[in-house]
Amino acid sequence: MRIDLNADIGESFGAYTIGEDQALFQHITSANIACGFHAGDFNVIKETVKSAKNFGVAIGAHPGYPDLQGFGRRELQMTAREIYNCVVYQIGALKIFCEIHGAPLQHVKPHGALYNAAAEKSEVAEAIAEAVYDSIPEAYLFGLCNSELIHAGQKIGLKTASEAFADRRYTDEGRLCSRLLQDAVLKSFDDILGQVKEIVINGRVRTQSGQLLSLQADTICFHGDGKNAALYTSKIRKLLEDAGVLVRSVGKPI
Amino acid sequence: MRIDLNADIGESFGAYTIGEDQALFQHITSANIACGFHAGDFNVIKETVKSAKNFGVAIGAHPGYPDLQGFGRRELQMTAREIYNCVVYQIGALKIFCEIHGAPLQHVKPHGALYNAAAEKSEVAEAIAEAVYDSIPEAYLFGLCNSELIHAGQKIGLKTASEAFADRRYTDEGRLCSRLLQDAVLKSFDDILGQVKEIVINGRVRTQSGQLLSLQADTICFHGDGKNAALYTSKIRKLLEDAGVLVRSVGKPI
Amino acid sequence: MRIDLNADIGESFGAYTIGEDQALFQHITSANIACGFHAGDFNVIKETVKSAKNFGVAIGAHPGYPDLQGFGRRELQMTAREIYNCVVYQIGALKIFCEIHGAPLQHVKPHGALYNAAAEKSEVAEAIAEAVYDSIPEAYLFGLCNSELIHAGQKIGLKTASEAFADRRYTDEGRLCSRLLQDAVLKSFDDILGQVKEIVINGRVRTQSGQLLSLQADTICFHGDGKNAALYTSKIRKLLEDAGVLVRSVGKPI
Amino acid sequence: MRIDLNADIGESFGAYTIGEDQALFQHITSANIACGFHAGDFNVIKETVKSAKNFGVAIGAHPGYPDLQGFGRRELQMTAREIYNCVVYQIGALKIFCEIHGAPLQHVKPHGALYNAAAEKSEVAEAIAEAVYDSIPEAYLFGLCNSELIHAGQKIGLKTASEAFADRRYTDEGRLCSRLLQDAVLKSFDDILGQVKEIVINGRVRTQSGQLLSLQADTICFHGDGKNAALYTSKIRKLLEDAGVLVRSVGKPI
Repeated sequence: MRIDLNADIGESFGAYTIGEDQALFQHITSANIACGFHAGDFNVIKETVKSAKNFGVAIGAHPGYPDLQGFGRRELQMTAREIYNCVVYQIGALKIFCEIHGAPLQHVKPHGALYNAAAEKSEVAEAIAEAVYDSIPEAYLFGLCNSELIHAGQKIGLKTASEAFADRRYTDEGRLCSRLLQDAVLKSFDDILGQVKEIVINGRVRTQSGQLLSLQADTICFHGDGKNAALYTSKIRKLLEDAGVLVRSVGKPI
Repeated sequence: MRIDLNADIGESFGAYTIGEDQALFQHITSANIACGFHAGDFNVIKETVKSAKNFGVAIGAHPGYPDLQGFGRRELQMTAREIYNCVVYQIGALKIFCEIHGAPLQHVKPHGALYNAAAEKSEVAEAIAEAVYDSIPEAYLFGLCNSELIHAGQKIGLKTASEAFADRRYTDEGRLCSRLLQDAVLKSFDDILGQVKEIVINGRVRTQSGQLLSLQADTICFHGDGKNAALYTSKIRKLLEDAGVLVRSVGKPI
Repeated sequence: MRIDLNADIGESFGAYTIGEDQALFQHITSANIACGFHAGDFNVIKETVKSAKNFGVAIGAHPGYPDLQGFGRRELQMTAREIYNCVVYQIGALKIFCEIHGAPLQHVKPHGALYNAAAEKSEVAEAIAEAVYDSIPEAYLFGLCNSELIHAGQKIGLKTASEAFADRRYTDEGRLCSRLLQDAVLKSFDDILGQVKEIVINGRVRTQSGQLLSLQADTICFHGDGKNAALYTSKIRKLLEDAGVLVRSVGKPI
Repeated sequence: MRIDLNADIGESFGAYTIGEDQALFQHITSANIACGFHAGDFNVIKETVKSAKNFGVAIGAHPGYPDLQGFGRRELQMTAREIYNCVVYQIGALKIFCEIHGAPLQHVKPHGALYNAAAEKSEVAEAIAEAVYDSIPEAYLFGLCNSELIHAGQKIGLKTASEAFADRRYTDEGRLCSRLLQDAVLKSFDDILGQVKEIVINGRVRTQSGQLLSLQADTICFHGDGKNAALYTSKIRKLLEDAGVLVRSVGKPI
């Protein structure tokens, strides 16, 4: 068994600090780095790429809607053409810092509302897949398990990594429960650990209604903005490794 | 004799159209494409790169201060580190569209207030030169004749192109007169043509005070936002060619 | 018979000019002034308020989504609370310039995608109506004829003005056809004039499918960004006046 | 003896939280509320105005340069006309929330680089003073002791409040040492307390070079973003009150 642990990183902006990046870097294997649209800025990107390289964490571009106030969590009605251009731009902006620091760009994972739109809407998914394919054809495309984004990535010829969430509740259809719902986010460590174990070791998840749903995940997303994000991630990684799971970024050969 | 004719291109933004890009593309040899900070956006960049390629016009990145309202013409007190990161980011964003469309990135020319700061302040000049060198070491750095920017480019090992302006009045020190002054911009075609001829054919310019100043230019900047920008550029190009001047982008072998 | 003629005004931004404001001011009776979120900026607002006052045109706030690149035409998933705050902020920003120049704020009309959302979604309509009521209870709320926005305005106790469009095609349900459709915007002067006459004089409009739909409008919206906007508006105003229609802003007593 | 204690408040933005506003509100008497340009947004403003009112803290507008990434700390080359419009806009945006919540707007204090520019440059100072006077003539203008801003406010007929800083080192000329310098900010509680006591009780401050400089302050600025901001403010307020100083907002009658 093998799993990648990813988290959203580099979301600080100007004088605003968010997340425990330095702590998280010690435990994750892939970092989704904000590209300056929904979070992050050119200074943050530069420092984050350097840190990721120093920690040996694989780097991914984390493009989002151009909506800093909404932190990329509000859907914005963009055409497929706009989404394509928007994603290419953000990949390019991150990629050049990777090139300068000699760090490969392993993957692309859309952020927030763009991620959710790409899970459900084929035209959004296809625009993103095309943007990634045209920009870095060797990259992995990260998307929700069984989502339109994963399908679009496979169709265009990208490597894909199916993603599950450590602390997000699932619907019976295998989607994430809306953050607007009360129980959308798991709060207790035991619940989070339980969900990760089910996913990684048993290939399934217990949904909102209590059913067990089959789920094949290549990478698990940890949220960096929670209170105990780094602590939880660290403990879960240890428990997984103790259970014989190989924790390694998707792009790294065994 | 040989000269490159460049103009700022791709400065439209969202619903806002500015400049006569399609007309100018027919007469210039190098295009400085706005990168989405002081002007331009990801949609405009994409279309502009495609157009430049179709017209056979060499492409340059045109990074500016992050100040859309000021169109990059207001100086912003950024540190050298911020300027470096800001320029790298913008180059990266443009470069990826060039790569996708198979169009090489010939040069980098800072915009507006950043261009002016780079002409005078060595720490700004060095930050920009370093950003360009780290991002695309084979690119030309465009800067004002005899400016700190040209010196910084030469020092770090970049190819440079010294630039003169078709319609901007010069001080006795070879700097551009401030746009705040009345006579900063030449308005009549005859004055503009006269200035271009003096520069290209005689290697000198008549300054504000009437003196003749020696000036060795590799490229002449035409402004795309004037009323008759395309028309003037077209006529001047013809007059130069009739006078035996080879009009060609700086990066193109003879 | 009496009608108000309104247009979106003050949509320029920084170096970007859009619309023929000075020409339009001569023919309209109410101006919807952009507030700096989807268009306009603090300099533009100041000059536009001054011009409106000089021309004797009634002033309205024209709040939109915080999306300059999309010109407020892309729907953004904001909560009712966010929309309320967003609209209050924009009204406040415009209102103070009105106070300084001694020009009353006659009305509020949401812009673009916010206008459309307010026509259909009661929670958006109510958030806007509440924002207007709390900010300037004596103002008129402009909204699409028979829309949720008009209902919400009436319910909270605002004066309302039902709006029809000179050049937008209507669905059989009395909604505007999406701009994504080919025939959404009337192009010929005769079609536009015909539609205005039907609305103002006969109280009805011919829909997309050719049906005649009853429509009671207090104000007609002219688009300022078309090619012949000012010319068309001028001619239509004259034809209406020749037909005995009193052309006057909604807030002005007879 | 009487003194006002003020702090910058409401600087959070979207998902980004900064400062300990709720804790500070318990100890200060005047709040400088960010207006959405260098910090804050329409949602933050609304909640902050409500909180200030609940805590009985006097409200001030805290306009800054339109530079969120730089948190308003980078000087931006704006003309006097632009600064006037920029400040009016921000005052208007905050004022309307004050009106809705029935909380008077006591003062205006420019932020960061704009504050510094207004201390030194008479044309900036005059533009701000005029903006405040035109917007809310009954408001206090807060400015550095003996600054151009205070002079401009007095000249135009505004009430002014001369401000000193609890934790900023002073030059021999009575200016703030640049934040770029190592010792610009006092770190230890004893140093901060000592400086406040000297200013409030003895009307003087010890400068960078060790001299004692006379300083008549109406209000003391505490920084809300330090680690122990609320704690320090609380302790210092208590010590002042124990020493018989009346701690009260400048606008409140005795």
